[in-house]
Amino acid sequence: MTPDLIRAAEARIRPYLRTTPLLESPLLNDIAGRRVLVKAECLQHTGSFKYRGAKSAITALVAQGDCSGILAYSSGNHAQGVARAAQEAGLPAVIVMPKDAPAAKAAGTRAYGAEVVFYDRWGESREAIGEKLATERGLSLVRPYDEPNVIAGQATAGLELARQARETGVERADVLICCGGGGLTSGVALALDMKAPGLRTRPVEPEGYDDVTRSLAAGKILRNEDTPASLCDAIVTPQPGALTFPIMHRLSGPGFAVSDAECLRAMALAARHLKVVIEPGGAAALAAALSGKGDTPDGAIIAFATGGNVDSKILSQALADFE
Amino acid sequence: MTPDLIRAAEARIRPYLRTTPLLESPLLNDIAGRRVLVKAECLQHTGSFKYRGAKSAITALVAQGDCSGILAYSSGNHAQGVARAAQEAGLPAVIVMPKDAPAAKAAGTRAYGAEVVFYDRWGESREAIGEKLATERGLSLVRPYDEPNVIAGQATAGLELARQARETGVERADVLICCGGGGLTSGVALALDMKAPGLRTRPVEPEGYDDVTRSLAAGKILRNEDTPASLCDAIVTPQPGALTFPIMHRLSGPGFAVSDAECLRAMALAARHLKVVIEPGGAAALAAALSGKGDTPDGAIIAFATGGNVDSKILSQALADFE
Repeated sequence: MTPDLIRAAEARIRPYLRTTPLLESPLLNDIAGRRVLVKAECLQHTGSFKYRGAKSAITALVAQGDCSGILAYSSGNHAQGVARAAQEAGLPAVIVMPKDAPAAKAAGTRAYGAEVVFYDRWGESREAIGEKLATERGLSLVRPYDEPNVIAGQATAGLELARQARETGVERADVLICCGGGGLTSGVALALDMKAPGLRTRPVEPEGYDDVTRSLAAGKILRNEDTPASLCDAIVTPQPGALTFPIMHRLSGPGFAVSDAECLRAMALAARHLKVVIEPGGAAALAAALSGKGDTPDGAIIAFATGGNVDSKILSQALADFE
Repeated sequence: MTPDLIRAAEARIRPYLRTTPLLESPLLNDIAGRRVLVKAECLQHTGSFKYRGAKSAITALVAQGDCSGILAYSSGNHAQGVARAAQEAGLPAVIVMPKDAPAAKAAGTRAYGAEVVFYDRWGESREAIGEKLATERGLSLVRPYDEPNVIAGQATAGLELARQARETGVERADVLICCGGGGLTSGVALALDMKAPGLRTRPVEPEGYDDVTRSLAAGKILRNEDTPASLCDAIVTPQPGALTFPIMHRLSGPGFAVSDAECLRAMALAARHLKVVIEPGGAAALAAALSGKGDTPDGAIIAFATGGNVDSKILSQALADFE
């Protein structure tokens, strides 16, 4: 991973991206007891930051000239990002998705023209299924995070944030990021290292899926052995990536874990005060920000709201539970 | 109202505004049967476009140098815009608000440091109460729409839209705008007349409160005689403004009326596909866009989502009713 790879991704995909706003609400700040700046990636195309990495990877494959179709395995956000980017490139896409993925995500993926193949999240390996399909059908696999051009695509969010934070008067702060395999965290970490060295990424994970947090503390990759229930479907991954972990180990601060209830509260407060819809896994960083996690030398904490693809019932539950 | 007044407002308030995104979702387009571009003013500071006009009016009053406090009458969105702009200027603010205003709006107004005085929407005149308070306490009244600098402030949303629509490849389209007294509709109409003459504003009102639509058709100001129940608290005004009506009569196309159910459906679809929270009155234009209203010579309709200050129960109702 080099700065050149990130600059090339930025040049390739910038015209297609939405520059997502850095939102702030005085009322939310009052609740948090400090300034909370929210990078609203739920407003990115396909409802999550995943479009950035998918667009970066697929435009790079197309530029190489040997791509006749795309395959991805994903719980839903990467799926939609890949489906849209493949559709824009005129390529077929096949997505391997866990059976328990939210209905909104499966429907969204199909609406972007992709074929969905379901698998059992706890009994089968999505990597094995994905690589088999890729071979059989001659598809190019776009991995969800352990892929240089995906990381470089996610880094474009960090380039935006570097400028937006400076405009807001915040040069030194922790940047809390909802973290699954670490693609966004590592990409943003690299971008901030280039453009805003006073901002430091810190991963936020669901309780029971704190593999990145524990791995960072241990200095080596650790797995989650148990698979407890979690509402945060977007970020319940078994372990950090082989590419993403060394980047996070070099550049990120220690991680945090948050509960489902904290994520639901963050969803309710984001809807009420920021007027955005966030999914549980996309609310983890805001949840951590609202409970005082992270350092704020310039008085503000930054949190990524990474996705908004949530079934209506869960959003209603959040609104009802945290009236 | 002159272009110079709008240019001056733009110069005065641009550094304080959020440039709200023009959102689009392929899935929402499929439902609508055409491209729908949504100007997400729910993401403006204080959760509605009203901050633009309030900031414009209050910065103009401060520049004149004879202002010791602000008074406004408002169902809640203008209230919050005025409260924030007054707070930013270090001025006290008193807001006259109907007793039946949503709790979220009264709470938001107080959170920005304003004093709230309630009145009976159907039994008392807010104008009379407001002007009395202004005289007694030496406050400057900032009217919600019939005020040149308020209209000029709302026009800044039209200046943004002119650029954004052009970048999206849409030069000729109807622009549907949720319409109460006509401040936003007339301001945007003036801005588009300056910068994007192929875009034409069209007011959208709640059923039973179609005074602007009927006034435009009649060529003179008509009132709503009845006061039926409506969820669209932000835009249930009795008649078009004396300043706003001639502008709309000159520049806007015919208006439309939508039902509460159509607004709730638009709210649910906006949450699901655009990841934004809109209030019923802020969803009227999107509701009209989704039911095929308005002309689309370039294949796209534009709709303003004017506000997002909705009580959680109403949002949950929308999500449940339109699963």
